[in-house]
Amino acid sequence: MELGVIGLGRMGQIVVDRVLADDHDVVAFDLDSEAVEAAASAGATPAESIEDLVSKLPERKRIWLMVPAGDAVDATLAELDPLLDAEDAVVDGGNSHFERSIDRGETLEAAYLDCGTSGGPAGAELGFSLMIGGPEWAYEDLAPVFDAVATGPAGHDHMGPQGAGHYVKMVHNGVEYALMQAYGEGFELLSEGRYDLDMESIARTWNNGAVIRSWLLELCEEAFREEGSDLGDVDDHVAGGSTGTWTVEEALEQEVSIPLIYEALGERFDSRVEGGKFSRRLANRLRYGFGRHEVKRRE
Amino acid sequence: MELGVIGLGRMGQIVVDRVLADDHDVVAFDLDSEAVEAAASAGATPAESIEDLVSKLPERKRIWLMVPAGDAVDATLAELDPLLDAEDAVVDGGNSHFERSIDRGETLEAAYLDCGTSGGPAGAELGFSLMIGGPEWAYEDLAPVFDAVATGPAGHDHMGPQGAGHYVKMVHNGVEYALMQAYGEGFELLSEGRYDLDMESIARTWNNGAVIRSWLLELCEEAFREEGSDLGDVDDHVAGGSTGTWTVEEALEQEVSIPLIYEALGERFDSRVEGGKFSRRLANRLRYGFGRHEVKRRE
Repeated sequence: MELGVIGLGRMGQIVVDRVLADDHDVVAFDLDSEAVEAAASAGATPAESIEDLVSKLPERKRIWLMVPAGDAVDATLAELDPLLDAEDAVVDGGNSHFERSIDRGETLEAAYLDCGTSGGPAGAELGFSLMIGGPEWAYEDLAPVFDAVATGPAGHDHMGPQGAGHYVKMVHNGVEYALMQAYGEGFELLSEGRYDLDMESIARTWNNGAVIRSWLLELCEEAFREEGSDLGDVDDHVAGGSTGTWTVEEALEQEVSIPLIYEALGERFDSRVEGGKFSRRLANRLRYGFGRHEVKRRE
Repeated sequence: MELGVIGLGRMGQIVVDRVLADDHDVVAFDLDSEAVEAAASAGATPAESIEDLVSKLPERKRIWLMVPAGDAVDATLAELDPLLDAEDAVVDGGNSHFERSIDRGETLEAAYLDCGTSGGPAGAELGFSLMIGGPEWAYEDLAPVFDAVATGPAGHDHMGPQGAGHYVKMVHNGVEYALMQAYGEGFELLSEGRYDLDMESIARTWNNGAVIRSWLLELCEEAFREEGSDLGDVDDHVAGGSTGTWTVEEALEQEVSIPLIYEALGERFDSRVEGGKFSRRLANRLRYGFGRHEVKRRE
């Protein structure tokens, strides 16, 4: 198969490499010409523009977008739309909100597959997990490419109609936040608890046969090995949060209670508050109000 | 090495089998004579009583207890104590509270190793994860047996002094509750959400390359495969809770906040309330109180 790939960042380059390694052809484009050169030296045909990329693909064009979710996707689709027809298909491998993917599917004349992609840069060797929504014929048609980009046939599936791929990926990320926080709570208690423990040893012992073994726990093991049992100078600031926020918003819309995911999201928000949380400062002052307890004040 | 094993339930039998398979000798006892016969036909030397088991072991006796945590452990240790001296060693592979393990270590003349065991019956083939506390010399001495019962040398380690093994296992279980609840929330939102989704397909796709892949997620996949996407007639009643309760109690003692583990424990409590939760019934009635909203009443 011949695949166009637009967006050659860390994840896009992995898509190119895995598709090439599986004996498909790739035409590659990125706004950054150095990224295009890197793809070309890996074996892809370089393109100078989106128009050039489309012109280099055969009939029934298949194009994979790996550009940042948001406006970059719309800008790319706006350029692509006049160049494609209903027999063509576009895969959006980014982390878009499922409702935007539904809108895009309705707007674009070509088939649009919203493809939630999980696994991060580690997917370069293992392959990704791909959750795909949109027209089933386009999913079936692109299956050989999905086989190559995913861990294999078991690593991708057609989740349902337009938006279902990014919907399932959104919930995946919400679960991810809660899993991270669950491990974090356990290690925090072990770290602050009554024994002097070796966190790397604990994570390694758990990863070998324990019920809670997982890839995230392997990443905990790696973190303790590389940073030490006390995590050295790693700050308590946690970035990110958009897919977790969407998960909570969708749960409110559906009236489904997801307290762990909500709490884990809140921990991220709290970790980014500068100068002390207002609610804690108010609690500090209120204890003076009703009990004349001493107010601890800033220096 | 020659190992005495007391307690031949599902987990004890696995210990016997794995130790025998690794070319050690086993003397086996259980109150249930059929279990002793089963161990004997697997290759163990049967014992008729604890005293008989001890008499059949050589000097520097090594004994593994796999009896239910609680009074059964104390009853067994009370029988063992007069028969053992300071060169002997007892492994408690059950799920005792770490403080009881500290007490037992102080009482018993023999060395006492508190050994948190994770992996469940699936450990029969793979081996367990073993978290071990107590005298280091006894841990080193028993390492060949731990190699056999665990997944191998990476599946066990000496966590620290008396109680540290059961302490780490307690926290393991607390994390386990929160992980189960995190996956549960994700699948509940997917199940109640806006798409008609195949839960087994989602779990399988995630288990192949996604960040949240884990053994528990493999068990989710198995559950959906065997019970269906809607879990068929599986009730929403969750048993268990002792180790999670201990984890929360210890976190309160240490003033460490573990909201996800606490919430997951609470979900179990809530799942077992008969006749409706009192707090929800009161909220139902209070909405009438301040707003004259209709009170939904029982038939």
